[in-house]
Formats: sequence, C-alpha cells, structure tokens
Amino acid sequence: MSSTEFPAMTQKLLAAKKAKGISFTDLETILNRDEVWIAALFYGQATASEDEASKLLHALDLSQDLVPELTASTSKGLGPIVPTDPLIYRFYEIMQVYGMPMKEIIHEKFGDGIMSAIDFTLDIEKIEDPKGDRVKVIMNGKFLPYKKW
Amino acid sequence: MSSTEFPAMTQKLLAAKKAKGISFTDLETILNRDEVWIAALFYGQATASEDEASKLLHALDLSQDLVPELTASTSKGLGPIVPTDPLIYRFYEIMQVYGMPMKEIIHEKFGDGIMSAIDFTLDIEKIEDPKGDRVKVIMNGKFLPYKKW
Amino acid sequence: MSSTEFPAMTQKLLAAKKAKGISFTDLETILNRDEVWIAALFYGQATASEDEASKLLHALDLSQDLVPELTASTSKGLGPIVPTDPLIYRFYEIMQVYGMPMKEIIHEKFGDGIMSAIDFTLDIEKIEDPKGDRVKVIMNGKFLPYKKW
Amino acid sequence: MSSTEFPAMTQKLLAAKKAKGISFTDLETILNRDEVWIAALFYGQATASEDEASKLLHALDLSQDLVPELTASTSKGLGPIVPTDPLIYRFYEIMQVYGMPMKEIIHEKFGDGIMSAIDFTLDIEKIEDPKGDRVKVIMNGKFLPYKKW
Amino acid sequence: MSSTEFPAMTQKLLAAKKAKGISFTDLETILNRDEVWIAALFYGQATASEDEASKLLHALDLSQDLVPELTASTSKGLGPIVPTDPLIYRFYEIMQVYGMPMKEIIHEKFGDGIMSAIDFTLDIEKIEDPKGDRVKVIMNGKFLPYKKW
Amino acid sequence: MSSTEFPAMTQKLLAAKKAKGISFTDLETILNRDEVWIAALFYGQATASEDEASKLLHALDLSQDLVPELTASTSKGLGPIVPTDPLIYRFYEIMQVYGMPMKEIIHEKFGDGIMSAIDFTLDIEKIEDPKGDRVKVIMNGKFLPYKKW
Amino acid sequence: MSSTEFPAMTQKLLAAKKAKGISFTDLETILNRDEVWIAALFYGQATASEDEASKLLHALDLSQDLVPELTASTSKGLGPIVPTDPLIYRFYEIMQVYGMPMKEIIHEKFGDGIMSAIDFTLDIEKIEDPKGDRVKVIMNGKFLPYKKW
Amino acid sequence: MSSTEFPAMTQKLLAAKKAKGISFTDLETILNRDEVWIAALFYGQATASEDEASKLLHALDLSQDLVPELTASTSKGLGPIVPTDPLIYRFYEIMQVYGMPMKEIIHEKFGDGIMSAIDFTLDIEKIEDPKGDRVKVIMNGKFLPYKKW
Amino acid sequence: MSSTEFPAMTQKLLAAKKAKGISFTDLETILNRDEVWIAALFYGQATASEDEASKLLHALDLSQDLVPELTASTSKGLGPIVPTDPLIYRFYEIMQVYGMPMKEIIHEKFGDGIMSAIDFTLDIEKIEDPKGDRVKVIMNGKFLPYKKW
Amino acid sequence: MSSTEFPAMTQKLLAAKKAKGISFTDLETILNRDEVWIAALFYGQATASEDEASKLLHALDLSQDLVPELTASTSKGLGPIVPTDPLIYRFYEIMQVYGMPMKEIIHEKFGDGIMSAIDFTLDIEKIEDPKGDRVKVIMNGKFLPYKKW
Repeated sequence: MSSTEFPAMTQKLLAAKKAKGISFTDLETILNRDEVWIAALFYGQATASEDEASKLLHALDLSQDLVPELTASTSKGLGPIVPTDPLIYRFYEIMQVYGMPMKEIIHEKFGDGIMSAIDFTLDIEKIEDPKGDRVKVIMNGKFLPYKKW
Repeated sequence: MSSTEFPAMTQKLLAAKKAKGISFTDLETILNRDEVWIAALFYGQATASEDEASKLLHALDLSQDLVPELTASTSKGLGPIVPTDPLIYRFYEIMQVYGMPMKEIIHEKFGDGIMSAIDFTLDIEKIEDPKGDRVKVIMNGKFLPYKKW
Repeated sequence: MSSTEFPAMTQKLLAAKKAKGISFTDLETILNRDEVWIAALFYGQATASEDEASKLLHALDLSQDLVPELTASTSKGLGPIVPTDPLIYRFYEIMQVYGMPMKEIIHEKFGDGIMSAIDFTLDIEKIEDPKGDRVKVIMNGKFLPYKKW
Repeated sequence: MSSTEFPAMTQKLLAAKKAKGISFTDLETILNRDEVWIAALFYGQATASEDEASKLLHALDLSQDLVPELTASTSKGLGPIVPTDPLIYRFYEIMQVYGMPMKEIIHEKFGDGIMSAIDFTLDIEKIEDPKGDRVKVIMNGKFLPYKKW
Repeated sequence: MSSTEFPAMTQKLLAAKKAKGISFTDLETILNRDEVWIAALFYGQATASEDEASKLLHALDLSQDLVPELTASTSKGLGPIVPTDPLIYRFYEIMQVYGMPMKEIIHEKFGDGIMSAIDFTLDIEKIEDPKGDRVKVIMNGKFLPYKKW
Repeated sequence: MSSTEFPAMTQKLLAAKKAKGISFTDLETILNRDEVWIAALFYGQATASEDEASKLLHALDLSQDLVPELTASTSKGLGPIVPTDPLIYRFYEIMQVYGMPMKEIIHEKFGDGIMSAIDFTLDIEKIEDPKGDRVKVIMNGKFLPYKKW
Repeated sequence: MSSTEFPAMTQKLLAAKKAKGISFTDLETILNRDEVWIAALFYGQATASEDEASKLLHALDLSQDLVPELTASTSKGLGPIVPTDPLIYRFYEIMQVYGMPMKEIIHEKFGDGIMSAIDFTLDIEKIEDPKGDRVKVIMNGKFLPYKKW
Repeated sequence: MSSTEFPAMTQKLLAAKKAKGISFTDLETILNRDEVWIAALFYGQATASEDEASKLLHALDLSQDLVPELTASTSKGLGPIVPTDPLIYRFYEIMQVYGMPMKEIIHEKFGDGIMSAIDFTLDIEKIEDPKGDRVKVIMNGKFLPYKKW
Repeated sequence: MSSTEFPAMTQKLLAAKKAKGISFTDLETILNRDEVWIAALFYGQATASEDEASKLLHALDLSQDLVPELTASTSKGLGPIVPTDPLIYRFYEIMQVYGMPMKEIIHEKFGDGIMSAIDFTLDIEKIEDPKGDRVKVIMNGKFLPYKKW
Repeated sequence: MSSTEFPAMTQKLLAAKKAKGISFTDLETILNRDEVWIAALFYGQATASEDEASKLLHALDLSQDLVPELTASTSKGLGPIVPTDPLIYRFYEIMQVYGMPMKEIIHEKFGDGIMSAIDFTLDIEKIEDPKGDRVKVIMNGKFLPYKKW
C-alpha cells in the first residue's frame, strides 16, 4: 500500500504537517496527548474529542471541516494480512517468533487471560547508543482474566 | 494449534517444568538469561550454547539427549498466518491498528529504516494496580537505517 | 474437521459423557458452572481449577490423569478461517451481515470501544414455540472504551 | 475498510443522521423497527418496504430518490474474511473459541440442526454497572432440524 | 484429498459396500431413505437414528460398534475451499457463474430471503439419452424470508 | 460485493427492468429463453445472438448500443472465492456438505466422469406449500465420461 | 509436497517400476494406453478397468491386491493451489500469461464455450534439437459450446 | 474479472478489431506472427518491436500513440490465483490432475529439468469432427536441465 | 499488476526517462548511486535526499514538485503475495527451492542469525557468453546474529 | 515448519553430518560440487548421479540404501507461501521491495525475458568485516529472451 492510497484525511493531515514543518513531538505539547496516539488519529485509528480535533486542525492551519471525520469512530485496521512494509513486518515477525513464549510468561505471571489492546498505551523512545541507536517500544495493557461463568 | 501439536521437545520441556514445579523466573537465575528468551528456547525459537542446554536439562531433570536439538538453529515461526489464540492475536491487532502510526513516529525520530527483530530483546513485567494489574512489554531493537549504494 | 480430529482429551471426555448418559445440563449442577463454559472446557478452550477438573473427571468416571491438561491454559481457537460446519457458519454469517450495524449501535450507546470477549459470558436457551422452537443466545461482555494517552 | 469505502447510500444516510442529530433509538420509534435492523438497512444488509424507506428518508430530510435502493435486495456480506476492526473481530473470536462448545449445547438441547440466521433477530442492550458497563447481545433464531429424505 | 484421507468410518463403510456388491440404490430399499442421504451418512454429513444405523451396519455385515459414530452429529463440511475434484468443482463453477442470476430469480419469485440448505432434499436421476446420458440434480429447499424486527 | 459494483451493463439492464415493471418471467415469453439464462445474460455470464440482444434491449426501452457487449463472450465468474451473500452461500454449503455423496451416487450410476456445467440447463420453480413455500432447483447436465487414451 | 507424501499406492507402483527397470513407454505397449494416462493412473487420477489394473500389476510383479484401488474413482486433484514444483509451475504460468489470449483465439474459432478437460487426451513428445531438445505437449479436447435454454 | 476491467490499451485494441471486422487469423498474415502471440500482445503479455506495433495499429486504424505501450515490457500475469472463467479454469484443472503425471513422463524422457515457458510457442488448431469439433493446443518449449555446480 | 497501476510518480519518472532516452546506467553517473537503487527510488522503495531528488528531476526535465514524494519514506513492498510476473517469480522460486539450503550454509558459516535486507546492497551485471548471456545478481548484506538476553 | 517436519532422508543426512562433525565445505571437496548445491541435495531439491549419491553416503557413514531417493527427481519447493523463518523471509522481502526495480534493470540491459532459475548457480561467501561480517550471495542464471512466434 503506497502512502497515496491512504484516506484523503490522512493525506491532508500529513501534507499539512510537512508544510508547517511541525513534528509529532511538537503536537504532543499542543494536544497534551502522546505522539503515537496522535499518529493513530492521523490514520483514522483513534477518535478525537471535538476539542482535540479543533486544536489539531488549528495547529496545522487546516479548515475545521475535518472535525466530523476526526471525531467519528470508523472501522479500524490497516494494510494487508501479512504486512509487506519491512518496518511493520518486523512486529509481525516478533509475534510469529515470540508469540507463544510471551503467552507462557504472561500465563505464568497472571494466569489464563490476555493483555488488553484497548485499555492500552504504546510509547516509542529513542535510545542513543554509540554502537547504533536503539528503538524502545513500551506496550502497557490491562491484564484481563478469563471470566468463568 | 493446540499445545499437543508443538514439537516433542517443547512438550517434554514444558511437562518436566510443570512436574518440577519450577517457574521461568526460577530458570532466569539458573541460566542467567531472561525468562522470555528461555521460553523462546522451549519453543525452538532460540538457540542455546552447549553449556546453556546442559544446565537447562539438568535443572529440569531431563536427559542430556536433547542437547543437539537445543543447540541447533531450526526454522523459526509458529502458528497460523493470523493467530487464533486471543492473547497472541492482540499483538497482531496492535500491529494492524498501530503499525502505520509507529512507522510515522520511528521515521520522524530516526529516518528511513527499521527496528531490528534480531539485535533485539523483549521483556515482560507485571505492574500491580488496584484497578487491575497491567502487562508491560518492553521491546528494544537496534535501529537499522537503509543503506544507500 | 471431523470430530475425530479433535485432541485426544476432547474425544475422551465426549465419549465418557456419552457412555455415562450424562448431559451438559447435568454437569452444570455438579460443577456449578454454565454448560457452555463446561463444553468450552471439553474442547480445551477454557481452563479449570484443580478442583473443577477433579470433579468433572469424577463425574465422568475418568482417571484423574487428565487434571494437568484441564488446568493448563493452551492455545485457543478451533477450526478453519471460514467455518464449514453449517451451525457454526451461521455465526460467521451474522458477523458478516450484522457486524457493521452492531458496531454502529454499540458506538452510539457506548462510544468508541469494544465488547470484551474475555470478561464475557455466553448462555444458550431453548425457547419452545409451536411454530418451531427457537435458539436464544445471550452474550454479555464488559464494554472497554479505548484509552487515550 | 475505512468508512469512506462503504456504498454512497450508506454514507449519505450516516451523514444525514449525524447532521440531524438523530439516534438509531430515535429511529426505532419513527419506523417501529429495532435499531439493529435499521442500522442493517443503512448498510444495505436489509430490505425496507416502500413505506419504511419513505419514512426513513423523510425523517432524515433526504430526497425520496433513495427509495429504490433501500427496497432492493442486494448482495449481502461486508468486509474482509477475517475482520480487522477490533469490535467486529471479537465476534469472530467468539465463534473461533466458543463455536464448537455452542454446537455441542445446541445439539444436546435440540438435535442435529442449526440456528437460523434468517428467521432471526438481534438486540443490543446497555447494562449499566458501576464496575464498567456491559454490552448484552441477544440473538434469537429459529431452530431448523436437518430434514431426512 | 485422496479417498484414503477420509475418516476411518467412511472407508470401512465404502469397503464393506464394495465387498458385498451392494449399491446405494439397494440401500434405499433397505433403509427407506434416499441414496444421496445415505451417501451423506457414509461421509459423516448426516446423522442416523439408532435404528437406521443398526440396519445399515447389518446390511453391510459390519459390527454394531459403529452405531455411536453414525448417530453422532459431527462437524460438517468436506474438502478444500475451492474443490479440486473436477466433478465437485463443476458445482462450484455453477455457483460462480449462475449464483447471482439465481439470486435475481429467487428474489423475484419469493422476495428477500434464501433457500434453506437444512430443510432441504437433493435427488439425482439418470436421464438416458442417445446423444449422451444426462445427470439431473433436483434440489428442494424451504424458502426462508428474512424476518424483520 | 454490493450491487453497485457490478458492471455498468448489468446495472443499466436491472434499472430499466425495474423502471418498466417487467419481470424475468415476462422476458421468458419475449425472448423464448428461460428466465435463469436471461438473468445470466444480465450479469454478463451468457452470450446472446444479435437478435436476442436486440429484442431484449427493445423490450427494456434501451438503446441498441449495448448489443456488442451482450453478444461478446467475456470472462465468466462472479464474486469472492467463498460467497458472503447468504442465498448464494447456501449453494456453496451444499457443495461442501453433499459434494462427495453426490460424487458417489453419480459414479455409481454413470461411472468415472462428471456432469457438464456447459451442456447444462438450470431451472427454478416455486412450489407453494402451506407450511412454507419451497424453492426447487433443477440442474440438468450431460454426463461426460473420462476418455481413456 | 515431497514424493514421500503421495498415497501408498503411488509409492508402491513407482518403487516397483524402478525396481523392474521398466519405463512408462514400455508400459504403453503392455497396456495399450498412452504413457501419460498410465502415469495419471499411478497417481490415482485415472480409473483402470479390472483387466488394465490386473495387467499393470502383473507387469510390475505386484500382488493383485491393488486392483480395487486402481479401479475405484477417487477424488482427483493434486498439490497446492499454486504449485511450487518448477516444472509444474511453468504450466500454471502459461495459464496466467496466455490464458486470456487462448480464450480470445478459441472464442474466435469456435464461439462461446470451452475445451473439455474430460473428453480430452494429452501427449508428450521429445523433439531432438542440436540447440537443445524441446518438449512438445499436445492437448486435444472436445469443444463444448454453452447450451442456451 | 469482466473484460471491462482489462487495461485501456487492451480494450481499445479489441474494440478496433471488432469494429474493423478483422480476425486474429487475418492479423497473422499482416504481422507474420502467430495469432496466439498477437492475442498475447493485445493483453500486454508480449512485447512488440516498433515495426510490429506500427503495423498492428495501422491494420486496426488506430493512432500510433499506442506504440510505446506495445513495445514496453510490462509486468505479466493476469487474473486471480485460481481462475473463475470456465475456459481458463480447465487449463488449471489439467495442471492439477495431470501435473504430476506429466512431470513423471518428462523426467523419464529428459531427466531432471523443466519445459521452458519463455523459449516457448503455443498454437491452437480447430479439428473438425462430425461428433463435435475438437480444440488442439500444441505447446513447444525448450527442455532446460538443472545445472549442477 | 500492469505497469499502469503503479503510482503516478513512478509512471511520470519512467515516461520522462523513456522520452529523454536516458538509461539507468546514465543515471548512475549523474546521481553517483547504483542503478538498482535508482530504480528502487523510481518505484517508491527507497528514499532520496533533497539533493538526490533534485538532481534526478533535473536530469529527467521534470518539475521539482516531486521532491517531497521522492524524499518521503512511504510504505514499502510491491505486488501480490506470490508474484505472477515470470521474471520476478523466478526469485520467489529460488527462495522456495534454495531457501532452506541457504539457511544451512549461512548458519554453518556464521551461526544463528540472518542476512540483513536493510544494511544491504544489490547489484546486477550482464555477463556476455556466446552460449547465451547471463544475469549475475550480487546481494551483500550484513550478518546479524541473534542477540541473547 | 520445524526442522523435525522435513523428510526422513533430510533428517538422516543432517544428523549423520552433525555426528561426523563434517561441514558442507568439507563435502565440497569430497563431492566436487558447491556447498549450496549439496545442501539442496540434502533437502531433496537437487538430484544426484549414482556416483555422487554413493560418495556422499560413504562420507557420512550411511548405508547405500538412500541412493534411490538421492537420485530421484522429486517435487521441489519447501515451506509456506510466505516464509515465517526470518532468514528466509529476508529473501522474500528483497523480492517484494526490489523485484520491480530488478526487472527494470534486467530489461534495460537484456530486453524482455527472464533470468533462468534452472540454468542457474548460487554461491554464498563470508566477507569478514570489522564492523560486522557480511553475507555475499551470488546468483548467476542464463538470460532467456521471450521467443516470438
């Protein structure tokens, strides 16, 4: 999927951000939300409040016409079943290689259940390192035990 | 895939661990390796040194016959293209929903490249919380910029 | 998938139940759990406590050797991507036809989020009706709003 | 599938409903039909009578030009084979995890047959709960026994 | 799927039928059921009564041990998503080529609904013809109109 | 696939037929062809003679410009690999459940070969029945024995 | 699919043929059938008469026990949806690249219809050529025009 | 894939050919190339020289603007993984049923290697026959033995 | 995927290159980058610096408006899961046939790890040979050993 | 696919090689064949002469019973459609990302045609480098131009 295939809203937001020379980190301060969540909003994967939508459009010098689309909760999920983009594929590979091991550890620590992907946050940090900088991804989700009934 | 379909080696290691009443956390101390890596070894997704294999089998009261299999580097990757297990599926869902946003943030912070899934570590922590304990997953991979030539 | 392809544990439990002439409704009283949950346990889709496993095996005149398998939390998810069994397919069809409408209604009533399939119960009732009995399926899952961060 | 990919009719109806500030619950009273059925009509998954179509368009201040499309019985079924939207995926997961157990219970109560997805109703209720509101989904379908011949 | 991959029950029934030199038409008289239904029973796609199972096994000189399997209602559906066997593929092709036209005609004659595949019979006749014999397949299913609610 | 995704020719023909208030049964008389074949022609799955095309367009008050498209033999086959429309899916289900049994009966009656889907007709009748009308589908195809060489 | 995964009958026939040092061309003379048809028989894709089966087993010094399997008409079709074997893949590639062009030519020469794959023969010849020998494949199938009704 | 979905170039060439009332056989004489190769050129599956492209466009009374597209070597391969068009499907079926037998014969005659689909020609002939005309397809490809190194 | 389906940027660059009569080898000298990398840039699979983008557009007599698209890092990966184009398919086939053998050799020489496809270069050379020219592809990627933790 | 799922022959050869402490490089000298070709032979992807098979088995202290399997040309192609093993996946990724660019360069240098994967060799070299050793893969295949006819 080339970037020109994303929804018009996503393309407008990304183009305006580039034109303004503003970064996601800058938007963190303006919206008081994490940069990953804001990027998810750009891609229609999160839902803003009216106020957040308005502030974002203001910061990007865009018309308020996009408020309804930014505040609607649309269908989520992007891209093909197996991602072809190498950066995104690596997360798929991690799930293929380390999925069962993670399940073992989570079950040992918590019992039968899952990590929520809804009551969930995700942060990305840059760890500078003379041997090559490192990407640190921190996922934090509520543990949900299987209910018995 | 029910757990009885995993390789014989995996089943033997899991059964012995259960019979001994030993946890992956206990094995951390014995092997001086992270519990996630050890669980990956159980599932044939990591390769032990002769010494690590020997210590592990000793700790689980298993014969040393499994040393060759634990030290061989076999084909990696488990399970179906889209995982059906709810715990593992959530990581697939995170990649579907947050994959492109993560790509945007990583590119903004690092430029065009990927997070390595090979020069990579993964830790799982339990965050106790009165409103419900939380699972914290920390991935740490070297950033690899695309080489131009 | 013919029933002879299910795990050995499932086949043993179903055969014993048939031989004893005991129903899932009878097992409800013995285990003090819902019949659907008990059937899920038969298929390795739920995890029993030691006590529940023991009672179940006792009720079915089976050896206690299956306790470890009944209390382990194995990989979940059965059958092909699109089910071929007509009874199960109908639930897939409902999701295909009514999935987006259900999403609209749930979002209207609750906001952006999901119905949990983990903090979740499922009951099946028989509604007698002279024009043809009816199957009533009641799903009850906690609403989980998307966390913003 | 982003919402902008749904048929033009669906988009017009949803936009008009938003512009009017009217809810599916309000439409229940106007059309004397359940809100889930009405949402299914929005998505081209149900067929209205001329009268129902006319009333709906009137209530939404839309031209009667959409009557033919609302009263036609078009091809049904939405979205990809495995849904990527997390809310809809959970119903797929329920079918994967609880499909065979439900089959066992339905066969025990009714014999060999299926629950109809055609002679069928589906209701969604909000159960308020201080520990977190709950979504209640009630499916009610005629039992159809396999005919022998 | 070669025939040796079908369940053991199917293979035993087919082998006994061949050894006895008995045809499905002969079995029609013995069981007072249609030959297609009986063939479906051989493949585990239909469920016999105790009496029918007993008569069938008697006619084939097989032990009564297969009664439980013949009277159980197992998971239905055989073969790959797109059949490779040319005879069966032709029915798939008919659905691909004539599916939408059939839908148009059924909707014109009956309204929005489906032909039941459960309250359903299927007969096969041989039409002798000097220019080449013909296969006549008669499907007869109850029309089920979509319920509005 | 919503009906708005069919080729322009199909949409024009269906709209004109609706506007004229003419049924496929009416078209049978006009064209002296079966209604199922005519519906197949609407969907580009059959090829008309010049004369048939001309008569059809005349009957629907459409310009003769569509003659070339109606008389061309285009690629056949509609819709996804597994149909999502419930009416069409039921024919797929019949093939999944009764495919092998039909093969057994056809082989018993005719020997190794297939029913042609080309030298083939398909009729649909409405059987009125106080307990619910029934759909009768009659397929009639030439038996083709495998040639040995 | 490695050759060790083919049915036991196929493996026995191939092993006996190798042990006897007999070629398919030799078998042509013995059975008075084409070598391709005989190879199809080895793979369970064709059905022999009792006499042909008997002669073949005799020629290969095998017991007559395989007569029933050689004379039964089993499910046909081998291998994965897209073949991985390079020799077989080339025929798939030809269909991908030259399929539509072949359709155009066949329609131009014969009208709307197909080449039968049942009333069909296939021969393979070796054309010696100093610049490299060539494989000649001759397919010969009856043209079947679409029946109108 | 309906014919209206092929590239604009293909549609223009086919329409001009129909308008001129010229056949592929006529084009053979004009271009001094086989009709199958010319049809492949229409579908963008072969690459013309400047001279061939020019002659073809001249013969079809089309502007020379299409020369660059006819002489470019674009991505090859048409249609879905498993073809739905019955004529093209039959070639897929032949590969499914006779693929392994063809491999056996080719290996017996030539050794380990393949028939080239590149150094390859394909001809189609009409064999008139009072019992029904026959389609003869002749494929002729260079044998390529596996190189050892 | 016909070439007309590639992004507008790709089509503009290829058309301008053809119009100018300039080769990728010529572009090597102008950009001081390898021709394969430059072709990857044309297809949106590599990211140029502002200076490289500017030089390329200048060389092709194109407006500088494409600079933002050439310097953005878009989603990577082209074409279907299994490529249909014969040239590209051969590389897929090499991976299918020689993938495991390459893994064995790389593991024997380097230990458990992978060849990077990011810190990676790829060159293509033409080896003239009287028996037929040869294509030489040289891949050169950093070995990345699995990190233990 | 875990390595224990490979054919028995592959497992025997790999185990014997490990037991003998012999490397593929050692086998190069013994067989006078490249190590990659020898590894392909281990996996049933290449065909040995009688002499090569015999020498290999002798070198590994294995019985000559495996000669027939090593000299037979079996079906080729290993593993799933999209490889899950990270090392092998990288070659798939290279084809996804650089496939079309390679096609452009090969067409520019050679014209319309392909690189043979049959008249083909593949070598792997270790390039020592203080910043991290590098894997060099050299593919060398005959260019095959499309034949016109």
